[in-house]
Amino acid sequence: MKVIDGGITAAKGFKAASTAAGIKYQNRTDMAMVYSTEPCVSAGTFTSNVVKAACVQWDMNIVKSGKPMQAVVINSGIANACTGQEGFDACEATAKGVEKTLGVPFDSVAVASTGVIGMQLPVDKLVAGVEDMSAKLDDSILAGTDASKAIMTTDTVNKEIAVEVELGGKTVTIGGMSKGSGMIHPNMCTMLAFIGTDADIDKAILQEIVSDVVADSFNMITVDGDTSTNDTLLCMANGLAGNAKITSKGADYDAFKEALSYVCITLAKRMAADGEGASKLFEAKVINAKSKEDAKTLSRAIVGSNLSKAAIFGCDANFGRFLCAMGYSGAEFDQNNVELFFESANGKLEVFHKGTPIVFDEDKALEIMKADAVTVLVNMNEGQASATAWGCDLTYDYVKINADYRS
Amino acid sequence: MKVIDGGITAAKGFKAASTAAGIKYQNRTDMAMVYSTEPCVSAGTFTSNVVKAACVQWDMNIVKSGKPMQAVVINSGIANACTGQEGFDACEATAKGVEKTLGVPFDSVAVASTGVIGMQLPVDKLVAGVEDMSAKLDDSILAGTDASKAIMTTDTVNKEIAVEVELGGKTVTIGGMSKGSGMIHPNMCTMLAFIGTDADIDKAILQEIVSDVVADSFNMITVDGDTSTNDTLLCMANGLAGNAKITSKGADYDAFKEALSYVCITLAKRMAADGEGASKLFEAKVINAKSKEDAKTLSRAIVGSNLSKAAIFGCDANFGRFLCAMGYSGAEFDQNNVELFFESANGKLEVFHKGTPIVFDEDKALEIMKADAVTVLVNMNEGQASATAWGCDLTYDYVKINADYRS
Repeated sequence: MKVIDGGITAAKGFKAASTAAGIKYQNRTDMAMVYSTEPCVSAGTFTSNVVKAACVQWDMNIVKSGKPMQAVVINSGIANACTGQEGFDACEATAKGVEKTLGVPFDSVAVASTGVIGMQLPVDKLVAGVEDMSAKLDDSILAGTDASKAIMTTDTVNKEIAVEVELGGKTVTIGGMSKGSGMIHPNMCTMLAFIGTDADIDKAILQEIVSDVVADSFNMITVDGDTSTNDTLLCMANGLAGNAKITSKGADYDAFKEALSYVCITLAKRMAADGEGASKLFEAKVINAKSKEDAKTLSRAIVGSNLSKAAIFGCDANFGRFLCAMGYSGAEFDQNNVELFFESANGKLEVFHKGTPIVFDEDKALEIMKADAVTVLVNMNEGQASATAWGCDLTYDYVKINADYRS
Repeated sequence: MKVIDGGITAAKGFKAASTAAGIKYQNRTDMAMVYSTEPCVSAGTFTSNVVKAACVQWDMNIVKSGKPMQAVVINSGIANACTGQEGFDACEATAKGVEKTLGVPFDSVAVASTGVIGMQLPVDKLVAGVEDMSAKLDDSILAGTDASKAIMTTDTVNKEIAVEVELGGKTVTIGGMSKGSGMIHPNMCTMLAFIGTDADIDKAILQEIVSDVVADSFNMITVDGDTSTNDTLLCMANGLAGNAKITSKGADYDAFKEALSYVCITLAKRMAADGEGASKLFEAKVINAKSKEDAKTLSRAIVGSNLSKAAIFGCDANFGRFLCAMGYSGAEFDQNNVELFFESANGKLEVFHKGTPIVFDEDKALEIMKADAVTVLVNMNEGQASATAWGCDLTYDYVKINADYRS
């Protein structure tokens, strides 16, 4: 597997475009389109929130129908959630716009939205945006990057990646883009992510791999514990790589899954590090837990705790907060087995050893905590399962961003 | 039922004292003692956190043993959590100190701690503090207030209350004090609360009433979603009111429960309003839900959401965040039945009606949100159950307080 330049347009047959449709933001792009020259098999994971945005329901229908997917239209600024029938009508109008301009069936067009909940989308601007983008579709790296930037809201960095993997002598490419900074919490596919690949793969197998990979990547990050109404990951595979079609488990299945996993973990970590107001990436690695489920529960509780997040912001090795979060996570364990370490590029330090606090060097702890990425490593000493979760620190800027997001 | 002056010393036979033991804080009191002249039946609720502080385990043993309880010694500054065997030894040394000074059995002495997790308590200072306080025990209102103030950590206001209720012609008094501002989250008895009553009541009945009342008061507040290692509520009843002993359900049971409920809800709401960094009380009232459990889940999700809390801080009627929190709460419902209102002393405004956003007057919304206490009222229109949860806004000061709590 090899990381290459680019994002969503890296795989053969994928084009992208973006435009400034003026939906809510001014003086910036706010719509993106991804298009595959060939119909794709698709897989998706969607928010577990009971209050699903209209576009999430639209996309779930397409993915479940088994029909091909060929395009995705995304807007930022307004989430099209809590919008009743008018919200569904906006999805259909957008998809029908693509049918008109590109001649693909409207039910092969996915739509996605991110932004304020409870506002209606301006349908005329959406349709005009679709017309503009349809004429500009391009397979260059730049077109993919511009599309990725158009869907940012409170994000401060663009998040895209592409990798190549050899399957039976053929080069298969996977490219992805994602956005997400706030209203981000595990147990779903977090926020918006779009992955295009030229792999030839069976639809059911693709969904199986996507669901597995999402569980250990996007579903292991949190920014604020708020599971969005709009979380969507869509993966489209158009088969242009010409590899022997992946239809069952085996070497190709594993190689493709490893490559997709790299793409998803990379995008997920960038999302966590770019959490609203974040100043650093906060990683929790739990090892030797009784079960995989426990390891996940524990690591997510650590990165999800407001108090732990504030301690990471303050570079305070206040390890009791991390143990406290583990304690209320729902996982059962004996604190007398636990070893807890702080770790970063600046070193590693044990602070709690099997039930008892260690008197540690505060200067060394501060040095470790000052790094851009800080890991809390917890050895449960109760089994062999492990898991890693990613989050970010809780800062003044998180509060600032969210105290007046609508205005 | 009548609210009267005072707190923990209001009921007959209850004395209190406090002292500056120098455990961690300087230039302030940091130890308190509550003592009943008669042995008491006791009831308690304790943290559901797997990582329980040494003092929590000590008190659980006493309450479960069925033996009388006669005193409680509390310190602030250090939580005595994650402290191994040394932590248990500190509890025992404290209780034995009381046995020596007051002549009550050491296993009738409860202990409680609040403060930093993972630091050892200085036993010599604890024992010296017990000696000092034993000589100063007093049944005045002031002694109770001073004890209540000694257990504050990041709290900014003292939280105590007392009520009288007539049971069969006898006046029964209930007095309580509590502390709590951070690391506060439902599903336990939140932080420290001590309630003294002169009611004559059966131990099992007292525990039943306490557990019921805590479920709808302390367990319905949240500040930061972090369930502490030290949460403890203890209720001591010494029987000095001379009422006919409460041994079963009936009029006296109901009257006592109503009075205790008033005490607990008052203390719980004060705790929420005084949440770390809070500028206002944030109440979520869910009505006409399918079940009581759903109503509780929904109301707690609303007040627990960082994004909702930040919107309350910013006086932003961004109702989509509240619906989003309801959606990921775990309760099932149809958004097309939901009506959502903002309400405060400044008025009431519907913003979402059965699946569709309402175009509302932003100036009126701002006026409502600017109040010291803001309620989100949600009519589910799916049943008859209701519940109320309390929290606070998420502010810059929350981050500031918690980024360097240890220093």
